[in-house]
Amino acid sequence: MPSISKKGLEMPESPIRKLVPYAENAYKQGKTVYHLNIGQPDIKTPQVALDAVAVHSLTTIAYTRSEGSDAYRSKIANYYSKHQIDVTKEDIIVTTGGSEALLFAFGSIMDVDDEVIIPEPFYANYNGFSVASGVKVVPVVSKIEDNFALPPIEEFEKLITKKTKAILICNPGNPTGYIYSKEEIQKLAAIVKKHDLFLISDEVYREFAYDGIEHYSILQEKTLDDNAIIIDSVSKRYSMCGARIGCLVSKNKEVIKTALKFAQARLSPPTLAQIASEAALDTPQSYFDEVKEEYVKRRNTLINGLQEIDGVIVAKPKGAFYCIVELPVKNADHFAQWLLESYDLDGETVMVAPAAGFYSTPGMGLNQIRIAYVLNNESLVKAINILKEALKVYKD
Amino acid sequence: MPSISKKGLEMPESPIRKLVPYAENAYKQGKTVYHLNIGQPDIKTPQVALDAVAVHSLTTIAYTRSEGSDAYRSKIANYYSKHQIDVTKEDIIVTTGGSEALLFAFGSIMDVDDEVIIPEPFYANYNGFSVASGVKVVPVVSKIEDNFALPPIEEFEKLITKKTKAILICNPGNPTGYIYSKEEIQKLAAIVKKHDLFLISDEVYREFAYDGIEHYSILQEKTLDDNAIIIDSVSKRYSMCGARIGCLVSKNKEVIKTALKFAQARLSPPTLAQIASEAALDTPQSYFDEVKEEYVKRRNTLINGLQEIDGVIVAKPKGAFYCIVELPVKNADHFAQWLLESYDLDGETVMVAPAAGFYSTPGMGLNQIRIAYVLNNESLVKAINILKEALKVYKD
Ligand SMILES: Cc1ncc(COP(=O)(O)O)c(C=O)c1O
Ligand SMILES: Cc1ncc(COP(=O)(O)O)c(C=O)c1O
Repeated sequence: MPSISKKGLEMPESPIRKLVPYAENAYKQGKTVYHLNIGQPDIKTPQVALDAVAVHSLTTIAYTRSEGSDAYRSKIANYYSKHQIDVTKEDIIVTTGGSEALLFAFGSIMDVDDEVIIPEPFYANYNGFSVASGVKVVPVVSKIEDNFALPPIEEFEKLITKKTKAILICNPGNPTGYIYSKEEIQKLAAIVKKHDLFLISDEVYREFAYDGIEHYSILQEKTLDDNAIIIDSVSKRYSMCGARIGCLVSKNKEVIKTALKFAQARLSPPTLAQIASEAALDTPQSYFDEVKEEYVKRRNTLINGLQEIDGVIVAKPKGAFYCIVELPVKNADHFAQWLLESYDLDGETVMVAPAAGFYSTPGMGLNQIRIAYVLNNESLVKAINILKEALKVYKD
Repeated sequence: MPSISKKGLEMPESPIRKLVPYAENAYKQGKTVYHLNIGQPDIKTPQVALDAVAVHSLTTIAYTRSEGSDAYRSKIANYYSKHQIDVTKEDIIVTTGGSEALLFAFGSIMDVDDEVIIPEPFYANYNGFSVASGVKVVPVVSKIEDNFALPPIEEFEKLITKKTKAILICNPGNPTGYIYSKEEIQKLAAIVKKHDLFLISDEVYREFAYDGIEHYSILQEKTLDDNAIIIDSVSKRYSMCGARIGCLVSKNKEVIKTALKFAQARLSPPTLAQIASEAALDTPQSYFDEVKEEYVKRRNTLINGLQEIDGVIVAKPKGAFYCIVELPVKNADHFAQWLLESYDLDGETVMVAPAAGFYSTPGMGLNQIRIAYVLNNESLVKAINILKEALKVYKD
């Protein structure tokens, strides 16, 4: 029997999916499971986007240009200019989700064994894309005590080697909910300029900024034109994760030229989804206002509820719809499994994501979980209560 | 300014796209350009697929499972059983086009510097996926004189090293139009079993088999269960290239388990397109009969027309909708550019794909072009006439 690649063996399993079999067992036992584990919002997709698909007049679902249709890219550029990000359609490559934009970025700027520095905890699939690209993740620890703010810039300096090609941030952060300030972005700008690195910023949660905070994009930092690569996506912005549309944005022409070659090899981003995504750009502001209000309400419910549980520490998320929660348990992996396998409160339990998978340093995050507040307020209240009661009886 | 990766520099430009700027210039000059260069069929998508999208009742366009929706995978398994390919939904991972299936296959079975043997000329993007995966393509020459039949198996034997992990075939072939016989598949089966290699078969043109030939899939060859990986796609079958739906099929559980990890990292294949693709499986047989009849007519027009041009050699394609044509020119690249830049017949010209990009051995295919017969018969007749007249006046 021919054997699998080393790369294939090293590919991480998603930290979220590992628990799926236990969840399926829980359903079989008749339990209700509140899903706090995944980033699939329950929010409705804007009607304009749904309608655009329904009234499509295609007779052949053809490839679009590899970089995405001209019309769509022009409209995206227009969207960015409203967000003080000054780009043209030539700076944009439409991708199959933010996921593919990450792959193109990694492939365009890094070779095998090159290094990318990422503040941890970070979006777990950065690990998968790194393994797929043969690239090494070098984590720099951000701390729950600091609300997961940017680690001191000296910590980055210490980690920079000849192999370092980029710093990757997620802003607003999954799983931290942290939003970097303008000052923090400027510190990063200084260090990437000094060491001639790329700065990749995953801004798929740009719109999800709460408490009056204004998101500051790396492309608002003019000095970064040669260094900045933005990863973006319609998945969360319009609650259309299944569309699979995102983009890679850079003012660095070499980056765009190179990413385009990766794009050409795979021919085209999805055509139907581009129709939906182009229409989504006409979503009225009221939609976002309502969504934001909803998430703020949920976040407040969640954070207030969690803070009342003995021994629980929680960072206050300012954006996105996740938070990292430290629990009074030794092994959150085991706790999450136990919640599904052996626990219920009146037939109900919760599914959470153990946080260790969001760290790259072994041993980090063992007593933490990530919670996605993608459920309505009422369900959240129930879920928090289940967690609270569960912690009372759980033994490590 | 930080620099692009070596990998990025090595990524090939698509041999088809190189000529695009010249084509755009030709439009500006007011010329009509017949496109024989791309594999984007003009055939209509089945109405059932278009309708399924139009009547969608989604309120949230959500992620599906990373391996594709259960319902769709079950229906694909059923499709295969009708084609004497005995698989279950567990053997199938739905991908974003055949393109992504190729990337997952390469990543799952090959590490950096591993080798894959491919009969050339081959689908040009195999080069791109190889560079992206850090894998080396080892070509084995198939010849126009032999109609691009399988090269003698000794030629494969000579090329097998410790680094060889797989043989990749395209069947029916793009750009050759050749269909491997059962005997040829069995020869390949013997050699991959002997050397413990994977056999990847790109069967995206399965249905496009003419002259009563029955396509023989590698998964009909029972001995290959551990070795076989099929790459498939809805792109050409239902003329829905822009859907971006394909799949990877294997009875080898380790391959599926590994490819699934790559699939999980990118979360989900496109949801809207899965709806269209699932519906497309209900396309009536009459659709395929008509499409096949149309392509056979076009092929006959093309081949007969080309054979009448002095100095032109053309293989007789038995499937797909491409053929390789040898021209009485030294440099087909230059000829193709000249057609767009400097030639017209009553304001009309043609765009063809220089064939060198479909070879991996330097210097091969320099006097060949690939023609895609994706235009209606009338346009084809005109295009052939333009080629004929152009060759009369062209000087190398
Ligand atoms: C931080 C972050 N980046 C990228 C992605 C990828 O999303 P998509 O490929 O759906 O755009 C996600 C999805 O959860 C995410 O949370
Ligand atoms: C031989 C072959 N394989 C794979 C593909 C990839 O197609 P898709 O990604 O649209 O399924 C193509 C497209 O032209 C092809 O010709």
